[in-house]
Amino acid sequence: MIYFNCDYNEGAHEKVMEQLMLTNMEQTPGYGCDDYCRQAKELILKECDTKDAEVHFLVGGTQTNTTVIKSALRAHQGVIAADSGHINVHESGAIESVGHKVLALPAEAGKLTAAQVENCYLAHISDDSHEHMVQPKMIYISQPTELGTLYSLKELKDISEVCNKYRLLLFVDGARLGYGLAAPGNDVTLADLARLCDVFYIGGTKVGALFGEAVVIINPLLKEDFRYIIKQQGAMLAKGRLLGVQFQVLFKDGLYMEISRHAIDMAEKLRTVLYDKKVAFYVENRTNQIFPVLPDAVLDVLRKNYGFEYQARIDETHSAIRICTSWATKADSVEKLCQDLTNLL
Amino acid sequence: MIYFNCDYNEGAHEKVMEQLMLTNMEQTPGYGCDDYCRQAKELILKECDTKDAEVHFLVGGTQTNTTVIKSALRAHQGVIAADSGHINVHESGAIESVGHKVLALPAEAGKLTAAQVENCYLAHISDDSHEHMVQPKMIYISQPTELGTLYSLKELKDISEVCNKYRLLLFVDGARLGYGLAAPGNDVTLADLARLCDVFYIGGTKVGALFGEAVVIINPLLKEDFRYIIKQQGAMLAKGRLLGVQFQVLFKDGLYMEISRHAIDMAEKLRTVLYDKKVAFYVENRTNQIFPVLPDAVLDVLRKNYGFEYQARIDETHSAIRICTSWATKADSVEKLCQDLTNLL
Amino acid sequence: MIYFNCDYNEGAHEKVMEQLMLTNMEQTPGYGCDDYCRQAKELILKECDTKDAEVHFLVGGTQTNTTVIKSALRAHQGVIAADSGHINVHESGAIESVGHKVLALPAEAGKLTAAQVENCYLAHISDDSHEHMVQPKMIYISQPTELGTLYSLKELKDISEVCNKYRLLLFVDGARLGYGLAAPGNDVTLADLARLCDVFYIGGTKVGALFGEAVVIINPLLKEDFRYIIKQQGAMLAKGRLLGVQFQVLFKDGLYMEISRHAIDMAEKLRTVLYDKKVAFYVENRTNQIFPVLPDAVLDVLRKNYGFEYQARIDETHSAIRICTSWATKADSVEKLCQDLTNLL
Amino acid sequence: MIYFNCDYNEGAHEKVMEQLMLTNMEQTPGYGCDDYCRQAKELILKECDTKDAEVHFLVGGTQTNTTVIKSALRAHQGVIAADSGHINVHESGAIESVGHKVLALPAEAGKLTAAQVENCYLAHISDDSHEHMVQPKMIYISQPTELGTLYSLKELKDISEVCNKYRLLLFVDGARLGYGLAAPGNDVTLADLARLCDVFYIGGTKVGALFGEAVVIINPLLKEDFRYIIKQQGAMLAKGRLLGVQFQVLFKDGLYMEISRHAIDMAEKLRTVLYDKKVAFYVENRTNQIFPVLPDAVLDVLRKNYGFEYQARIDETHSAIRICTSWATKADSVEKLCQDLTNLL
Repeated sequence: MIYFNCDYNEGAHEKVMEQLMLTNMEQTPGYGCDDYCRQAKELILKECDTKDAEVHFLVGGTQTNTTVIKSALRAHQGVIAADSGHINVHESGAIESVGHKVLALPAEAGKLTAAQVENCYLAHISDDSHEHMVQPKMIYISQPTELGTLYSLKELKDISEVCNKYRLLLFVDGARLGYGLAAPGNDVTLADLARLCDVFYIGGTKVGALFGEAVVIINPLLKEDFRYIIKQQGAMLAKGRLLGVQFQVLFKDGLYMEISRHAIDMAEKLRTVLYDKKVAFYVENRTNQIFPVLPDAVLDVLRKNYGFEYQARIDETHSAIRICTSWATKADSVEKLCQDLTNLL
Repeated sequence: MIYFNCDYNEGAHEKVMEQLMLTNMEQTPGYGCDDYCRQAKELILKECDTKDAEVHFLVGGTQTNTTVIKSALRAHQGVIAADSGHINVHESGAIESVGHKVLALPAEAGKLTAAQVENCYLAHISDDSHEHMVQPKMIYISQPTELGTLYSLKELKDISEVCNKYRLLLFVDGARLGYGLAAPGNDVTLADLARLCDVFYIGGTKVGALFGEAVVIINPLLKEDFRYIIKQQGAMLAKGRLLGVQFQVLFKDGLYMEISRHAIDMAEKLRTVLYDKKVAFYVENRTNQIFPVLPDAVLDVLRKNYGFEYQARIDETHSAIRICTSWATKADSVEKLCQDLTNLL
Repeated sequence: MIYFNCDYNEGAHEKVMEQLMLTNMEQTPGYGCDDYCRQAKELILKECDTKDAEVHFLVGGTQTNTTVIKSALRAHQGVIAADSGHINVHESGAIESVGHKVLALPAEAGKLTAAQVENCYLAHISDDSHEHMVQPKMIYISQPTELGTLYSLKELKDISEVCNKYRLLLFVDGARLGYGLAAPGNDVTLADLARLCDVFYIGGTKVGALFGEAVVIINPLLKEDFRYIIKQQGAMLAKGRLLGVQFQVLFKDGLYMEISRHAIDMAEKLRTVLYDKKVAFYVENRTNQIFPVLPDAVLDVLRKNYGFEYQARIDETHSAIRICTSWATKADSVEKLCQDLTNLL
Repeated sequence: MIYFNCDYNEGAHEKVMEQLMLTNMEQTPGYGCDDYCRQAKELILKECDTKDAEVHFLVGGTQTNTTVIKSALRAHQGVIAADSGHINVHESGAIESVGHKVLALPAEAGKLTAAQVENCYLAHISDDSHEHMVQPKMIYISQPTELGTLYSLKELKDISEVCNKYRLLLFVDGARLGYGLAAPGNDVTLADLARLCDVFYIGGTKVGALFGEAVVIINPLLKEDFRYIIKQQGAMLAKGRLLGVQFQVLFKDGLYMEISRHAIDMAEKLRTVLYDKKVAFYVENRTNQIFPVLPDAVLDVLRKNYGFEYQARIDETHSAIRICTSWATKADSVEKLCQDLTNLL
């Protein structure tokens, strides 16, 4: 069996593992106050082309989203998100569990528009009864989105402008950020994110690390006492250097982008076959998640040798599935799937 | 100016006020452990045709909804509601502030259907990734709804059946319950609610009391330690007898229904004029909230002498408004408005 | 039976009731946005000798404490309180339920000292591991305390100074404030509180109102969006004018102080008898709560005609009890108890 | 420099690292639903001599405590703990952040007694006003405690009996459990814990793993939907197999006990020197934390070559410090410190 179910089926990139082995018996202070973390932060800030940001390392995505949002919002404030946003559907109510409403908006291909955000904000605050409604204060978007699509620089700028206009906070979930940065047609860089967001995170769990997400805080107001909230959320790793070591490896000599590009290359190979066969897509994108619509009969055959996610029923004989590539996807596996697809379609 | 803005513009029914005056200097124990509360509870249980239920008196609606939901749900559970439901839009995120997601469903005229509820539940729990989603555990509906519509006994039974099938809890917000019970065509009684719900409340604030809501708990599992949660939510009135006194008056000799019928009579008078003039309605109902669509020019004239709520823009020259009658609405005021409407339309 | 159990056994002062009757059928906007509230706020600000403060009316004490603390603190911040403080022992964990630790300090006669507060703060923040501990941010004290004692102006100034030094917030719970202001030897005025605190509240429930507490917010940072939190906590009364009407009556022509002095006069009459009989006190104070230590045999006799609270066992034959007077205590009742005590002791 | 500051200065035991390397590129399902987790759970259950328990793997201690307590308690319930308990002092208010009061009791050498627990419970529930107080529902103890002391089997049984008597839940924090199990004089086994507790956890972070804690749930009531709460707390590791792999190694062939015994041997070596030199102890114990009281002059010298934690000032010239050994402590390092101590004292 070859699994294309998700981008966290394997462990970590071999260079990450090597460095974890190499540093294993060193003694360092705990909780992220070690030299590996310090160095990793510097590498990340350099990539983001900023000196003023703060970088914090957390373990996983739900944890990171909850910690950032809890730290940034007052009790009566909510966070605007796409209805398909991870915080809205797949975090077991983590955001609500820390007291905040997710103001979910219907999203085309997983993306919010600046106009939507502005309208939602105005609808909540112009009214006499605004105090009876949640106050929208933060915009949460994912880059790439949960459906693999990307915000263009223009789209991001427009949203950022709305945020500035109404003093809203822009938070970008980059759980799969590498696969966005490496995608054909992407025009958003880390430096752009650092310029346009108040806070964002660079995903490691899905992009070469055993685990770990790097939160980059730009807005000075969001920096104060952030480590308290990390600790309170149970998100402060005792052996914090494990995160520093991993991100140092990933951000030295461009490894993060190199392995991200590999995942994209693998995805593009699969897309070529699917395009050739005139396969329709549930949603079109160029990142590491592929959502082809395939005949159920074909899927039945594929299931014998491949793992993938069922996405949605399209009609009586067709379903959309999700195929994920990642830093760990082997060229052989993709080659094999390409051939099987070619034969079956 | 005559205000038809809402059903809480005035104080309390004169009989309520009289009894509060009469008992004012009596000494009673605090926190609802007095004879007036005891007697009021008995009167309510009698109307509900049950002996096993528990009755608790709280001060206001948001407080009551939050207390009931907080007491009933575990941390990972959410409450299904109409998108127009009070807990979803007009309680400043109170439900989320105690940790629970409101799973809002698009609602036709403010009402959920049994099929919607079932589909929502199944979508959340059938999947492999159900643990990554909020677990729906309670259904919240309002009778009448926020748009003045009513669930029929059949509709209520259907929803109740779905709840029983999946061990979901049914909670009915009766902030305006009297106006529902008294509405033409209503076939749901207090005894029906006590038979079909796990918990519901009978609104006093909008129906003759200075303030106060009577929570009726049917499901034994929801009774345990409920008073702790009332206290923790700041919802336990020190002079609890104020609530007992008021509900005793309202539920003695049928006053609650008598004054509710008055509000409905007043609303029906207004509807007759509007029907005569072929006025369209934003939503049709027979309770104490009327949602006519009127020419903006007419509204401009009306605004000089009458208060009402702006509901929505319908087209370039028409808007929907909300007119509320209540136990306190004077026949004269309605007469005057009827004439003005007749003249203007 | 005559009840001296607490200061909320009766309804409201007759003038309050009269005004509620008089204004009962007037139509006003809801949620505290009416003229009665506006006028009551002005009267209170005048007594506080300030123009910059904001006044908000809430229904009860637990609700008020929770709303103020929730609004003021970030998630990782805690509130320092006496171990006997109301928020620490008698609010069913309301403060923790909104996420904040009560940092309880052992208190002599219910009072914190400036030195205690400073030491507690420093112990929490000087350490390397401060991020692993709750950050103290607010000091909660009650005036009078739960044991009827009072902070002197000097003591209050010292605490306020510590707060300013470390940017801590000072919050005074004035549930029984009138009885403190009217006590012999008190040297703290409303204007002092307005000058020295960040926020405090003036209790109505225990001092002449049916219910209601007036929150006075001095610190501009605490004013922002406070009404959202009131609403979210279920603490925004629909018929808010009920609170305005009551506080307007209480703060017009000095009624609040007049009835507070009455309660103190009643308490002092009882104290005179107890002093004459050389009765010991569980805690000494001059406000409306009296804590005599009496022989159990005497208590057994008293219990037949009087209600009071059992406070603590002192030795095998003696117990401390709490006797409360209030605005509603009748001179006759006190006279009768004085005579019975004289005879029994 | 040699660090004796804590038991998480290094990475993981070499066998753990080897197995992580060996399995690194295997494809497994995420979120702990893999074979490594399954096998590790079986090994743990065997050691606990039970078949009915559930095992869940989480990442760290604060996270684990919060998840267990949040899952087990209703909103108005609190957890009794020693005032020195980790959840009371060193988790940044994590327990309060999920809504629960920590009812801290003064603890002799970090330990609660059965009598204390019973008295605390009775004080909270016997009173008329019990609904105004937090309801104690869970007892949290650490084995070993934060001060390295151990509950004897007799002490544990007594506490367990009180819990059964009042239907309280017993939760044992075993962050350093191995070092307790391996300590001289310990008479509590994993099987005892499984018999006497409702839930406990076996620490990995401080005992040979890179990170990870194994929660063992005995009480069936606590099993329901536990994974939802793990996810909601951001404690569900995407690559859950990392935890399974580690615990499998630790619990195969007795490695967990073997490395725990090593840490104890190292500590006992140090204690022998200190005993010989008649050094006093801040608290006496036989686990991996040593709390000697040493002259400040000696500490100044030691600081040049060794890291340790400052615990408390004892008098003008003496301080208590904490020295930690662990699975990773080298015999050489201990030998060196022993000699330096011998020379200096």
